[in-house]
Amino acid sequence: MADIHNDKGALIGLLADTMEDYARAIDLDQLERWPGFFEEKCTYKVTSRENVEAGYPFGVLFADSRGMLADRVRSLREANIYEGQVYRHLMGRPFILSVDNGLVQAETSFLIVRTMRTGEMSTFAAGTYQDRVRIADGKASFVERIVVCDSSRVDTLLALPL
Amino acid sequence: MADIHNDKGALIGLLADTMEDYARAIDLDQLERWPGFFEEKCTYKVTSRENVEAGYPFGVLFADSRGMLADRVRSLREANIYEGQVYRHLMGRPFILSVDNGLVQAETSFLIVRTMRTGEMSTFAAGTYQDRVRIADGKASFVERIVVCDSSRVDTLLALPL
Amino acid sequence: MADIHNDKGALIGLLADTMEDYARAIDLDQLERWPGFFEEKCTYKVTSRENVEAGYPFGVLFADSRGMLADRVRSLREANIYEGQVYRHLMGRPFILSVDNGLVQAETSFLIVRTMRTGEMSTFAAGTYQDRVRIADGKASFVERIVVCDSSRVDTLLALPL
Repeated sequence: MADIHNDKGALIGLLADTMEDYARAIDLDQLERWPGFFEEKCTYKVTSRENVEAGYPFGVLFADSRGMLADRVRSLREANIYEGQVYRHLMGRPFILSVDNGLVQAETSFLIVRTMRTGEMSTFAAGTYQDRVRIADGKASFVERIVVCDSSRVDTLLALPL
Repeated sequence: MADIHNDKGALIGLLADTMEDYARAIDLDQLERWPGFFEEKCTYKVTSRENVEAGYPFGVLFADSRGMLADRVRSLREANIYEGQVYRHLMGRPFILSVDNGLVQAETSFLIVRTMRTGEMSTFAAGTYQDRVRIADGKASFVERIVVCDSSRVDTLLALPL
Repeated sequence: MADIHNDKGALIGLLADTMEDYARAIDLDQLERWPGFFEEKCTYKVTSRENVEAGYPFGVLFADSRGMLADRVRSLREANIYEGQVYRHLMGRPFILSVDNGLVQAETSFLIVRTMRTGEMSTFAAGTYQDRVRIADGKASFVERIVVCDSSRVDTLLALPL
């Protein structure tokens, strides 16, 4: 394996593999794997472009530990979300903003298509993942993942993770 | 060229290049090239997530040889499908599940946007390619390609290959 | 860094990075950066698949210098387009058609989702970028970028660059 600290292509490959697997955990209904992509102390936030531009620190969803993410999964299971809908993530190539001492800052475009059990498909969300990722032992884990949706109309009350 | 049997990045690159070219054959109306991406004895199936989860072995479309795929192309040409519509494939990064002796198992998310001659665009299909791919002489060919659509409402009667 | 003139994977990586950054310039409202992706003498054209197939040389938009692209940005700023809408580009992996003496010909599928300030999302455009790219000093710049939209109904009067 190429040295991911020196080789930009290998680093982008590692990030892209991790993000693809993150998306699979959600799209394939393996939600219990989702918190494992984050560090124990972490930030996960879903917000909108409009909020970010206006300087509002709040998102429609916020967690600051892996435990909070696990709680979220449990409540989604109780609400039985997957009976009604599935997601499909399509992502662009991660764009690296900075690499500093094993901590990578990257931005990745995404599109999520939602399919209802009735068969109806729609563009559910589009935007960017703004990530701070720790690279250690050839693995990538999220220190921070801010999901910035292009639309401010994100239906989050019962939504799966983005 | 890097050794694709040892280098994961190079292997994913080869798979991604092959899948992009597969998509081009369909999207650019070069359908006659489509069977050539498969081994002579192969499996091609289009099915839905619901079918797979319910354990139904059947798909809405099935072929078990390159010849059957070529037959399909001929009947599509006779039906003159391309007069009415074109596809655009967008794919995620192939996710490798296993590599064994030149046989690779991989899963790749896809989204297909259909444009009608009238100009109308719509999300035609979303789902995953579940592939078994033979790597030989620096080339990749499909031993098995199962197209699992997220929606069970796939209009396949006159559809182009997915 | 790998030798991009000999290593296909590294070359595709460089193209993909450049295209992702090109898309960011548009999607993140950094339009002033957009002309900088082109050579000073260049071709930028937006056209439709139908036009190309019919052999019409005309597009709905045409520029043959970096200065014309900069003019376009100025008039878009005056028209205040960004008040009303944002784009999100999703792209496939660049498919290389030829490499000749530092000049690369490549084709890349794209999908653009448009989000209105009201929150409404729609598939705005899908198609291919047909590019001729100069590689020099580890950088890629567009000699020619033909944007071929699958649909002939592209609303270009007030559109952002594609």
